Amino acid sequence: MTAQPLKPAAIERRHKIAPPSPERFLGLVGDKLAATEVVFRDHFGSDVPFIQHAGEYLASSGGKRMRPALLLLVARMLGHDSEEEVTYAAVVEFIHTATLIHDDVIDHAALRRGQTTLNELWGNSLTVLLGDWLYTNAMKMALSHGNLEVVRELCEATLKMVEGELLALQRLGAADLTVDEYFAIIDRKTAHLFASACTVPTLITPARPDLGMSREAARRALQSYGKSLGTCFQLVDDLLDFTASEQELGKPVLSDLKEGKLTLPLILLLPRVAAGERRLVQHVLEDRSFARTTPEQVLELVRREGTVDEVEDMALELAEEARESLAGFPAGAAREALELAPDFVLHRRH
Amino acid sequence: MTAQPLKPAAIERRHKIAPPSPERFLGLVGDKLAATEVVFRDHFGSDVPFIQHAGEYLASSGGKRMRPALLLLVARMLGHDSEEEVTYAAVVEFIHTATLIHDDVIDHAALRRGQTTLNELWGNSLTVLLGDWLYTNAMKMALSHGNLEVVRELCEATLKMVEGELLALQRLGAADLTVDEYFAIIDRKTAHLFASACTVPTLITPARPDLGMSREAARRALQSYGKSLGTCFQLVDDLLDFTASEQELGKPVLSDLKEGKLTLPLILLLPRVAAGERRLVQHVLEDRSFARTTPEQVLELVRREGTVDEVEDMALELAEEARESLAGFPAGAAREALELAPDFVLHRRH
Repeated sequence: MTAQPLKPAAIERRHKIAPPSPERFLGLVGDKLAATEVVFRDHFGSDVPFIQHAGEYLASSGGKRMRPALLLLVARMLGHDSEEEVTYAAVVEFIHTATLIHDDVIDHAALRRGQTTLNELWGNSLTVLLGDWLYTNAMKMALSHGNLEVVRELCEATLKMVEGELLALQRLGAADLTVDEYFAIIDRKTAHLFASACTVPTLITPARPDLGMSREAARRALQSYGKSLGTCFQLVDDLLDFTASEQELGKPVLSDLKEGKLTLPLILLLPRVAAGERRLVQHVLEDRSFARTTPEQVLELVRREGTVDEVEDMALELAEEARESLAGFPAGAAREALELAPDFVLHRRH
Repeated sequence: MTAQPLKPAAIERRHKIAPPSPERFLGLVGDKLAATEVVFRDHFGSDVPFIQHAGEYLASSGGKRMRPALLLLVARMLGHDSEEEVTYAAVVEFIHTATLIHDDVIDHAALRRGQTTLNELWGNSLTVLLGDWLYTNAMKMALSHGNLEVVRELCEATLKMVEGELLALQRLGAADLTVDEYFAIIDRKTAHLFASACTVPTLITPARPDLGMSREAARRALQSYGKSLGTCFQLVDDLLDFTASEQELGKPVLSDLKEGKLTLPLILLLPRVAAGERRLVQHVLEDRSFARTTPEQVLELVRREGTVDEVEDMALELAEEARESLAGFPAGAAREALELAPDFVLHRRH
């Protein structure tokens, strides 16, 4: 019998409001997303049969394609309409996929999005090499339009993600992870690629002449949008470990904690509670199991201290900051869709 | 008591001739190699402490720096003298290092060049991420001079190497590996990066006006030089598994075979011998140990069939082909050093 997820008031309230339909968020770039999917699949073409095989599997594994969608919507808002942004949308998904499959090797994960992981299917060695291939092929695709600025941006984003993973891995299982350390990690691990996906369209020439702001101002605003949204996305990820049912998320409540990952509600909680209560959480981090502590004990602490509600408030604030970053851009369907993206992120249940 | 390495006639003859001194091969670009070493170390700078720490360790692990040396010598032959070729020399060593450390994860290797491997020291997870960081940072360094052609060449070389590793891994332990498959693998795994190291200087502008050949002709000749030399390098690697002592190589005779890797002398041998003899080799591939076959039995087969001498002849021929590829370039100290490189490769004992 797995523990029941928390139903904090703030989240209950928010979930009374209907989430935006995917159509309202993605409909505008539906054709471009479909084209991205084709590019994504086609670029697994290789004379190494395993790569093609793995590509089919990964392409059908149903990611949310959040980063490509953002890139394409920003491109639309800036007045671009070419194959170039489709390539870059596929590239960010390639990079994201590469980090996921190396993550799964590192976490010894057997399932992702309800599907058996590559490492579980084919072993760690092939999966490590496939990740290397994905990273490198992403760079090759990014190079295809000859835009050095874009390649540099995406290369830097990849580097930051890997650094974020390294920092996270070195602090895995640590009960003394600080809020600052946490944000330093998720800024690299998650927010940076969101920001890059949103700023890449500003690097595609020609800049839109009627935009009413400089390219640099547009880049800064979109970077801020992407960072806020990406950070919000990660906080929601943390929240789901407390609030989503196993049916929704495909894994039981407090799975992150069981894997040694301290999420923000617990980082906020630990310094506030008594030593004996702190030890309840430490035991799970040490044992990587609920052998000495029950999930209910941890959930009860979180309920009492209200830190899930606090993190929910932080996520709502980040969503608002993201929306505000768009104020200077021309009104229209693309900006509206981008303004909906934070709601889409806040309402996700998996 | 480990088995004694083979001393085939062809190799004995060759080793009576003194090998070229490293000074004759590398002296001309000694200053540039020293500068490359500084760039290599400096580029491990990161605000993630582990990366800097691992960088110190890798930089001091004493690689042969073969690829940087070739790149720098070709650049010198083409009349270049700038920081650009030093950066690219460091990049090829970064790429090479990244493949090595992921290889060590895949092979579960505990030692390389007599030094404890990163995976043995810090575990697979950190090592996988460090490899990712190295690959990506190599691209970032390559991008720093804004030369798209060079970045594309190095990206393609990385992709080919990873594909070579994938192909090799999928055929690991296979006793029916063909000569064609073998060359398809080592062409990607080893020869391609050698060729890229040698052709990158042709992509650095301005081309030398007094070269007496087109840039494209120079590129083709140097590609051929690099491919022949890289292939020769790999054949010598295979030969050392039969002919080098444990003291020289840091691992016992037939270590490759014990790891499931079929080297060229055995690929040539297997179709020629009786089924019972073939099984002796198959047992080692299956068991990954000399439980059912002794090293001496395998060495005796190789001695009888003379396939180490055959591979030695192939390596000599490749060395000659490499030298011939340089015929069209201006005579001088740089060309002479490049002509010596094949001897240097043929004489290496580790």
